[in-house]
Amino acid sequence: MRSFVVVGNLATTTPDFSLEDIPGTSGRIDILCRCINSAFVLSHGIRRDVDAYLILRGGGAAKTIHLRGRDLRHLNPDERTTAALLKKALALEAESRWTKSTPGIFVRAGDLADLSIFRGGTTYYLREDGSDHRGLPLARDGTFVLGDHIGLSEADEAILAGLGAEIVSVGPKSLHADHCIVLINNELDRREVPSHPAGGRERRTNGDE
Amino acid sequence: MRSFVVVGNLATTTPDFSLEDIPGTSGRIDILCRCINSAFVLSHGIRRDVDAYLILRGGGAAKTIHLRGRDLRHLNPDERTTAALLKKALALEAESRWTKSTPGIFVRAGDLADLSIFRGGTTYYLREDGSDHRGLPLARDGTFVLGDHIGLSEADEAILAGLGAEIVSVGPKSLHADHCIVLINNELDRREVPSHPAGGRERRTNGDE
Repeated sequence: MRSFVVVGNLATTTPDFSLEDIPGTSGRIDILCRCINSAFVLSHGIRRDVDAYLILRGGGAAKTIHLRGRDLRHLNPDERTTAALLKKALALEAESRWTKSTPGIFVRAGDLADLSIFRGGTTYYLREDGSDHRGLPLARDGTFVLGDHIGLSEADEAILAGLGAEIVSVGPKSLHADHCIVLINNELDRREVPSHPAGGRERRTNGDE
Repeated sequence: MRSFVVVGNLATTTPDFSLEDIPGTSGRIDILCRCINSAFVLSHGIRRDVDAYLILRGGGAAKTIHLRGRDLRHLNPDERTTAALLKKALALEAESRWTKSTPGIFVRAGDLADLSIFRGGTTYYLREDGSDHRGLPLARDGTFVLGDHIGLSEADEAILAGLGAEIVSVGPKSLHADHCIVLINNELDRREVPSHPAGGRERRTNGDE
């Protein structure tokens, strides 16, 4: 299970935005929608082995939306219908426990530090100056953390440093988070092919390789 | 100058579609919008060394829209505003010569066979069963041809075969065209870095390597 965590620094935590102008009224939830597309959408289906966590900080208290590939339904590749799914999730009362929205989508109150996905796995932080991910061992069940156009705060980076996150990049040009996710997914896909030098073997997740 | 050609088999050739329901009313122009995002959008700007050609076949006679990275303006990453740019272009009279729409966007009547971009360069056809692009020499100024969710017709494939197009793939999973474009761009970016084994050298475009 590979996981992606995307921080939306301005993303609204209420459903009060317009699907007619998502970038302008939702605090750039469109960025998160494209990340969802990148994380899950295949030509003939949805990646069942992917989880995504969106951290929305544009309201008073942060909310987290969890999309679980295994159960996800009604996901289309276009931004608007994905934004509509997020809108539904944001209309629910967000408590400390996960509340189910549409199939495969859950919401709760909470921020980056509250994610339990980090426990016991390998965390990677996508940043322009990171080590090229292609040259690194990558845990099959790793968690990849990305920021929106604003990026992660110093506090976020301290959390990730505390988790021993490896800072990785995806290429020589500075790309938006959604493009980075496509590249990470592709690299992991390649490594899962048995004929790949790193494929088929159990990957250690403690980064000792 | 790298070029991407994307065929929209059902894409409307008129501006008579709704930005409120792009997938449902435009013959899947949303697919083309995402391809434009993948082809051009960087974190801090637009790729100036990219050209894109969209072939729209959902009307009586096909139209071609050319987006020229060097001159492109008003391009945002979200689908809706990109669809609005295409709508403007489709509102113009499309003749056999290029007509300018908004900066960097041109439209004319014509289909895949009418594209002059193919002359003198190396053409690549993205297909699932193709050779892995990572293992191949790739012309810096190559033209990469992709189909929408329907794919290319036998007639299209015959055109590409006649051009000596190399059939390439981007990875083990079947991906939508927009994701393929992200992967191609990244591979070409990497090869342009001087320290890359293939970087910095002039690439032959006749495929003799």
